[in-house]
Amino acid sequence: MYSGHNHPGIPMKYKFSEMLGYMKPSEIRELLKYASMPDFISFGGGMPNPLTFPMQDLKEIVDDVLDVSGKYALQYGNTGGLPELRTEISKMVMKTEGIKSEENEIIVTSGSQQGLYELGKIFLNRSDGVIVESPTYVGAISAFNANAGKMIPVEMDSEGIISDKVEEKLKSLTGRPEFPRFIYVIPNYQNPTGHTLNLDRRKHLLELSEKYQVPIVEDNPYGELRYSGKKLPSIKSLDKTGENVIYLGTFSKVMCPGLRIGYTVAPEAVISKLNLLKQALDLSSSTFSQYVAAEYLKRGVIYRQVPKTVELYSKKRNVMLNALEEHFPKDSTWSKPDGGMFIWATLDKKINTNQMLKTSIENGVGYVSGLAFSPDGSHTSSMRLNFTFSEEEEIVRGIKKLSNTIKNVATGITAT
Amino acid sequence: MYSGHNHPGIPMKYKFSEMLGYMKPSEIRELLKYASMPDFISFGGGMPNPLTFPMQDLKEIVDDVLDVSGKYALQYGNTGGLPELRTEISKMVMKTEGIKSEENEIIVTSGSQQGLYELGKIFLNRSDGVIVESPTYVGAISAFNANAGKMIPVEMDSEGIISDKVEEKLKSLTGRPEFPRFIYVIPNYQNPTGHTLNLDRRKHLLELSEKYQVPIVEDNPYGELRYSGKKLPSIKSLDKTGENVIYLGTFSKVMCPGLRIGYTVAPEAVISKLNLLKQALDLSSSTFSQYVAAEYLKRGVIYRQVPKTVELYSKKRNVMLNALEEHFPKDSTWSKPDGGMFIWATLDKKINTNQMLKTSIENGVGYVSGLAFSPDGSHTSSMRLNFTFSEEEEIVRGIKKLSNTIKNVATGITAT
Repeated sequence: MYSGHNHPGIPMKYKFSEMLGYMKPSEIRELLKYASMPDFISFGGGMPNPLTFPMQDLKEIVDDVLDVSGKYALQYGNTGGLPELRTEISKMVMKTEGIKSEENEIIVTSGSQQGLYELGKIFLNRSDGVIVESPTYVGAISAFNANAGKMIPVEMDSEGIISDKVEEKLKSLTGRPEFPRFIYVIPNYQNPTGHTLNLDRRKHLLELSEKYQVPIVEDNPYGELRYSGKKLPSIKSLDKTGENVIYLGTFSKVMCPGLRIGYTVAPEAVISKLNLLKQALDLSSSTFSQYVAAEYLKRGVIYRQVPKTVELYSKKRNVMLNALEEHFPKDSTWSKPDGGMFIWATLDKKINTNQMLKTSIENGVGYVSGLAFSPDGSHTSSMRLNFTFSEEEEIVRGIKKLSNTIKNVATGITAT
Repeated sequence: MYSGHNHPGIPMKYKFSEMLGYMKPSEIRELLKYASMPDFISFGGGMPNPLTFPMQDLKEIVDDVLDVSGKYALQYGNTGGLPELRTEISKMVMKTEGIKSEENEIIVTSGSQQGLYELGKIFLNRSDGVIVESPTYVGAISAFNANAGKMIPVEMDSEGIISDKVEEKLKSLTGRPEFPRFIYVIPNYQNPTGHTLNLDRRKHLLELSEKYQVPIVEDNPYGELRYSGKKLPSIKSLDKTGENVIYLGTFSKVMCPGLRIGYTVAPEAVISKLNLLKQALDLSSSTFSQYVAAEYLKRGVIYRQVPKTVELYSKKRNVMLNALEEHFPKDSTWSKPDGGMFIWATLDKKINTNQMLKTSIENGVGYVSGLAFSPDGSHTSSMRLNFTFSEEEEIVRGIKKLSNTIKNVATGITAT
């Protein structure tokens, strides 16, 4: 008989499941607490800048939704998602990513985080493998851990995940119990590194998917936020079979995160399993949010809003890159992302960014340490820096302060 | 090596988890498809009447939220829920149910469905027991099945779950692996039966919780919707220890379902586990919905709205009870609920309501068959009838039609 974990301060009558033991608190979520301190500069969260929220358009849209469709928009809705919204999403992913889809190949989720959790839950038995980029999105680690999956990290370079190393893993794991149930990648301006997967590797991953019969989960939250470089085709659009790729998208970065609307595009047979699970998870995502998102697309607001967001973020990225160049220790390196929200900096390997975080926060600057994104305890000298949320002046001031913190910590280490 | 289930029409590269095998499609969700047929009368769904949505107040509230707090309401929020909303919920549950709680003893969920899923996930290992009323809420069955829990059904009568029988189960299961991790009950106007748990049994369940060290999960979606009888204290408010009861509530029936806001009140140690899991599930519930719900409470709209809802539903309940009296076959019985949204009818045991459903739908009337609410395949001659959604005239016409369907089916069975 499994008797549950011991948890200090918890009445003995509460016996928690083993699964719970696989979950760890997220450092990022913890950090949000400090974000309200006066003068605190946060490079920590992955928050869009509120200036990018289409406030005036949203005001008109919510009023119209309540006037025209109130009795439906406030009612329970279809588990798989509002049909009008799925139609609009289908058009959008064709327009922006060249992805062909029918309505029954789309599910609307409560943020793309729910999509990740769902994929973990429908595919993973305990200890089933998942190939992930190293480092990878912390929310994906949570979602797969929550289903007791076994992360199989694969190295990245500035061109994204190294597909030859993916092939090595697939070859060596063939016939083994932990053979991966899927390959999880964020090809554009990856979270946390900012790296973009090059075209050859996208094609190679598809070949591997077909050859080794392992699906690809393509997570593309930042695809529209490109500031330089050439747009590359999504892996899903390159897949002639229509069967190898499950594609995840979100409205959080092109509208706002607070309505919690994401989506998954996949073969209908997979979508029907995701629908089945979603009945148990939350019955449906907010009907009201879905009506708003549908209008946001239908009225074309998204195509006016995104260029403004790109302009704003592009400048902020440049400001942070310049500040890093000017102030950061010379023995550190950092990525030069073509888009997205993050720069990944790696310090002298003597410095543990996780240990340094408390000092940095006391000095008024937050970041997320590399460890949070590590599937295997690596990346201890790296950090993720968000450049979308702070004012340009704060970015400069924050990078200066952070540089001082690093130099002091480095001196302390050398001195002892 | 577990090789996944065989699923017809699904590419072999998709190997689903064993957990998925525990989930079954919900008949209710399937039924929603028919709800849009012209002239179709649905007693099937558990949908509030849109006339009860506080449309004008919500319009003012959404405008004010966007004007005053737009940049926060559209942003990512705290995983455990908007602090202002938790403060308001704490006041509300004190006022309406006499439940004492601090902010850190509350989590805001994406509907109370998410609360049920979370409880299943944090407490249940495969085959761990859960004591449930028989019949019980179909969404709870989904949530516990999705975590491979083992339902332990306990008989009900018109006074709710028979607590002596709960004690028998606890006694006989003591020391066994499937000893229940918790007892799940809906004490007020239960879904699907409409029965209310009497005061002595509420107290008895609490004694059992303490004696056998098994927590109670008290689900109270309909508590405010009382049309007759005396309000009984919530089990949570009767618990002097503050530790024995986890309480679930929702805004779906006292505001509207489309914003997907529910909440769980529990000891802080349990809430922190629910928060941890929620990070993986969806990061947070809609920030916008939470701001709206907070204002709904802060402005006291809820206390003006609920009496109107009660007046409307009370009439509809009476109309349905009268129509059943007049038209239903004399060998059938049905509950006389003091509140809530449902009447539970039981027909001659020769009739299988699940098999009859297709005929009834063809005749233009939907209901949910007893089997959907059954943890063990029982209740095959029962059905759940919703009285809140249809017009009074439709209720009468629908019950007449349904009575004819039953009589025809009964004659058919007798004839063969």
